[in-house]
Amino acid sequence: MGSQDNSSLQSIRYLRGSLQLLDQRKLPLDTIYLEIRDAAEGWEAIREMVVRGAPAIAIAAALSLAVEVSKLEGFSGTPDEAASFLKKKLEYLVSSRPTAVNLSDAATKLTEIVMNSAATATDANQVFQAYIGAAEVMLEDDVASNKAIGSFGSSFIQNQQKDFKKFSVLTHCNTGSLATAGYGTALGVIRSLYADGVLESAYCTETRPFNQGSRLTAFELVHDKIPATLIADSAAAALMKAGRVQAVIVGADRVAANGDTANKIGTYSLALCAKHHGVLFYVAAPLTSIDLSLSSGEEIVIEERSAKELLNTRGGLGEQVGASGIGVWNPAFDVTPAYLINGIITEKGVITKIGNEVFNIKGFVQKTMSN
Amino acid sequence: MGSQDNSSLQSIRYLRGSLQLLDQRKLPLDTIYLEIRDAAEGWEAIREMVVRGAPAIAIAAALSLAVEVSKLEGFSGTPDEAASFLKKKLEYLVSSRPTAVNLSDAATKLTEIVMNSAATATDANQVFQAYIGAAEVMLEDDVASNKAIGSFGSSFIQNQQKDFKKFSVLTHCNTGSLATAGYGTALGVIRSLYADGVLESAYCTETRPFNQGSRLTAFELVHDKIPATLIADSAAAALMKAGRVQAVIVGADRVAANGDTANKIGTYSLALCAKHHGVLFYVAAPLTSIDLSLSSGEEIVIEERSAKELLNTRGGLGEQVGASGIGVWNPAFDVTPAYLINGIITEKGVITKIGNEVFNIKGFVQKTMSN
Repeated sequence: MGSQDNSSLQSIRYLRGSLQLLDQRKLPLDTIYLEIRDAAEGWEAIREMVVRGAPAIAIAAALSLAVEVSKLEGFSGTPDEAASFLKKKLEYLVSSRPTAVNLSDAATKLTEIVMNSAATATDANQVFQAYIGAAEVMLEDDVASNKAIGSFGSSFIQNQQKDFKKFSVLTHCNTGSLATAGYGTALGVIRSLYADGVLESAYCTETRPFNQGSRLTAFELVHDKIPATLIADSAAAALMKAGRVQAVIVGADRVAANGDTANKIGTYSLALCAKHHGVLFYVAAPLTSIDLSLSSGEEIVIEERSAKELLNTRGGLGEQVGASGIGVWNPAFDVTPAYLINGIITEKGVITKIGNEVFNIKGFVQKTMSN
Repeated sequence: MGSQDNSSLQSIRYLRGSLQLLDQRKLPLDTIYLEIRDAAEGWEAIREMVVRGAPAIAIAAALSLAVEVSKLEGFSGTPDEAASFLKKKLEYLVSSRPTAVNLSDAATKLTEIVMNSAATATDANQVFQAYIGAAEVMLEDDVASNKAIGSFGSSFIQNQQKDFKKFSVLTHCNTGSLATAGYGTALGVIRSLYADGVLESAYCTETRPFNQGSRLTAFELVHDKIPATLIADSAAAALMKAGRVQAVIVGADRVAANGDTANKIGTYSLALCAKHHGVLFYVAAPLTSIDLSLSSGEEIVIEERSAKELLNTRGGLGEQVGASGIGVWNPAFDVTPAYLINGIITEKGVITKIGNEVFNIKGFVQKTMSN
């Protein structure tokens, strides 16, 4: 494992045998990295929200076990016993956030690799080395995937924005280094636009009720010295009417087979406002976010979250600001229909519409798999 | 001055010689009324944000002086000296919030009444009594005007919502008893719909960054026992898509001659989302909010407010939550174009569109003035 790229903010600092996680609970006020020495500390860090964001959680979990294993001395078992040891530790790590699909997917994949290794290994150490290698590949793959998203996205958007020498974009929630293994998806595209010298300015929403925009995205943009401005979620329409942004780029929680996209609450409103103002609207997400088993967004179940997130400061942890006794509707996500989306930016290229009508996502996925 | 209607929350409690203001800084956690005994205490209450909302500020100021005057003993001057005393006190009260147009308009009007009275009065007491009477009429007029808005609005909306036996509405910011002398404008319409038995449920937005929705509107709705639900500003589009609301009712800071309406930031976004979902969109405001000197919303200058409102909790007064160093764009208002508005509800009736095309606001105002 070589050293990571240090140009953009890192939430996960890893070198074989050493893992540090940026404590996101302390952001944006303090930048503190916590040393993670084993799976137990990884479990704790995930449970206590030191790290958040689906890809980041999965990779932090995998690497915490890799660090533990790299320091393991005197394991006297067989290759099968080593595999069994790792499998149990992975199951334990999954229990830190049982609903995180990326985390359980990663654990399944790593368990498979470990089992395969055990089948041919001559000693336990070979199994452990196979695990460490696979966990490190996950980290490298996620960063490489995000950089590819950034690169494809930047070229594509530049091509669509030929009228402008430089342009400004709006993003929502946090899809950056703090949500992924590094660089980010939608925020990765913004990083690439900036690196390519075509970004006038980035705008980010506050992203109520959990403030991922004002706390995390704003922090990343300031860290990377990208010219950036924070707005209230409700100011986006006025921003577009004033002609201050030429594109909106958001991430995705889940993309259905027709292109309907579930993402942080407020995304749908941004897409409607963008459509009205002729502002282009892009989704940036790895292919793993596409779920071809869902024919449309109608099939996506939206999680409803605690009333406290709206009634108290700091996402429910701080003092009360809302009136006691009021009912609260707090959906975590909404679904943006495909007809409001101008392109879905993946690590294999940008999915566009056939004759400006519909996305052929299945065709795109099949083609990239056959390559 | 008779007793006030006590069915809805009162921010201003007044009986001749006694004024109490609900301390809005303590809401929604504590309901505390402060005794205001003279203009100096009125000045302080306005300056320190005990009372807010343009109509409420103007009336609180006028009544604080009325209370002082009602207790005045041993004023030995002439009627002209009494008028001069009142004029100075009114100028002093205006200095508590120099940019509040309602407040300076009210002071101008009251000064005129006092001057006219002095011209014919035989002693100073007659001038003071004229002042007290005029201040009390302002209070009564504002409440009566709001109740007329509520009544016209409720009938009109019921007529437009004939498909529904009961329906639900969404509102934004605070336009209720806490912003006016009582009852409210947009929230007054909601109160009337509820009193008429046709309101299924009221939804209110959080209204970032100052949280007038979660702090104040939610508080009023709970107080009045109206079935009500709070949402994040960004959840409004998802709410409409889910079919949960049939109308949006908002207040107005200023209405131009063509119907373009300046109101709290986020109103424009709600109007766009409402249009897309076929949800009706109404503005409720007294005729004094209409400014015929503005031909369209283009002429309305939008105040930009402090970055701290977005970076810190409690509208800038609380702890820091946003990243240091980020730029902030924090417009206080936005302009909703007339084509997104289905009706402007005033105390003299509802202004609708001629042939569903344009509002004839000037014609409406002239007709009501000639009646």
